[in-house]
Amino acid sequence: MKVVVLFSGGKDSALASILLEPFFDVELATFAFRRHGTAEAAREAAEALGLPHRTITFEDGVLEEAIGLLLATGYPRDGLNRLHREALAVLSGGWEHIADGTKREDRVPMMTPDGVRSLEDSRKVHYIRPLAGYGSKTINALAKRYMEFVTLESGLHPASDFEVGLRRELEERHGQDAVARIFPANHMHTRVIRRMRI
Amino acid sequence: MKVVVLFSGGKDSALASILLEPFFDVELATFAFRRHGTAEAAREAAEALGLPHRTITFEDGVLEEAIGLLLATGYPRDGLNRLHREALAVLSGGWEHIADGTKREDRVPMMTPDGVRSLEDSRKVHYIRPLAGYGSKTINALAKRYMEFVTLESGLHPASDFEVGLRRELEERHGQDAVARIFPANHMHTRVIRRMRI
Repeated sequence: MKVVVLFSGGKDSALASILLEPFFDVELATFAFRRHGTAEAAREAAEALGLPHRTITFEDGVLEEAIGLLLATGYPRDGLNRLHREALAVLSGGWEHIADGTKREDRVPMMTPDGVRSLEDSRKVHYIRPLAGYGSKTINALAKRYMEFVTLESGLHPASDFEVGLRRELEERHGQDAVARIFPANHMHTRVIRRMRI
Repeated sequence: MKVVVLFSGGKDSALASILLEPFFDVELATFAFRRHGTAEAAREAAEALGLPHRTITFEDGVLEEAIGLLLATGYPRDGLNRLHREALAVLSGGWEHIADGTKREDRVPMMTPDGVRSLEDSRKVHYIRPLAGYGSKTINALAKRYMEFVTLESGLHPASDFEVGLRRELEERHGQDAVARIFPANHMHTRVIRRMRI
């Protein structure tokens, strides 16, 4: 069975892929924001993992919607969830099994049980969250065992996750003030740089 | 890392064990009800899986409590959850990582997010639910791929799950009428009989 994993290049989506790998043919997919080359970091991480990878570009309309949610709510959550749902919906057009690296303790992005059922029923897809039953401590222990990763400041090092992409899109359209108003300062991300095969 | 999986001999706890196996040293543990030899079916299934297995006996006081909950509520849920929590608490005395085969769509047994945090914090344990992020359809597809299992009527074939054990304890103490009043008729269970190594 094939599965496509929504992949940011960070340790969580990488570990989700590694947990699926013995049981599925795993492909990775990263969503890029137009004009920014935001998927490059994820592409390099996918190469480090040795897994096939593709980049899919978000449509402009979706980004406008997500930014509208940021501005309307003043918080990142709804905009990030909008992108996450969009990415899963797009993936469900091409694969029977789709997955991501969301964890038991994640608050954002996160789908409700009703959202999961609705996605699966409407798109005829199976959605898998390999890390849903793992706490952060176990995830960190496994991640350290199976890969080398670094923690980087997103302002200095480009990242391929939704928050970094959305910050850039917001800055381009509404300026750095809007970013500073809506997002917390000093966003960090992890980046897989090497895989350990045990 | 070692993990002990709460094991009934059925397809869900077996698949949870198989999903953990590439990443952990997996041991299986089945909780037996006194005097009934209820762990025998699970022992045979563990042998079919080729995984180390042990039986732990519930203490009488816990069974009394669970039966008290059945009689007080008139439904199986609270009694079953009581046994599930007890089993996880006992396992957490001997292993750093404990796991079970509860699924995304399970209602019983199921721990709330607060219950999970409380268990992990108070017992210094990491609790893993490998199937928490999988829907039933994907679980059935994987189970059929990795094992041969049968679906049996619990009244005719002994099973090692909590419901069957609790029905027997209730019958012994309060008679078949109490069982018929509280539990639905014709309980079925699955039993692993062979493992397919792919």
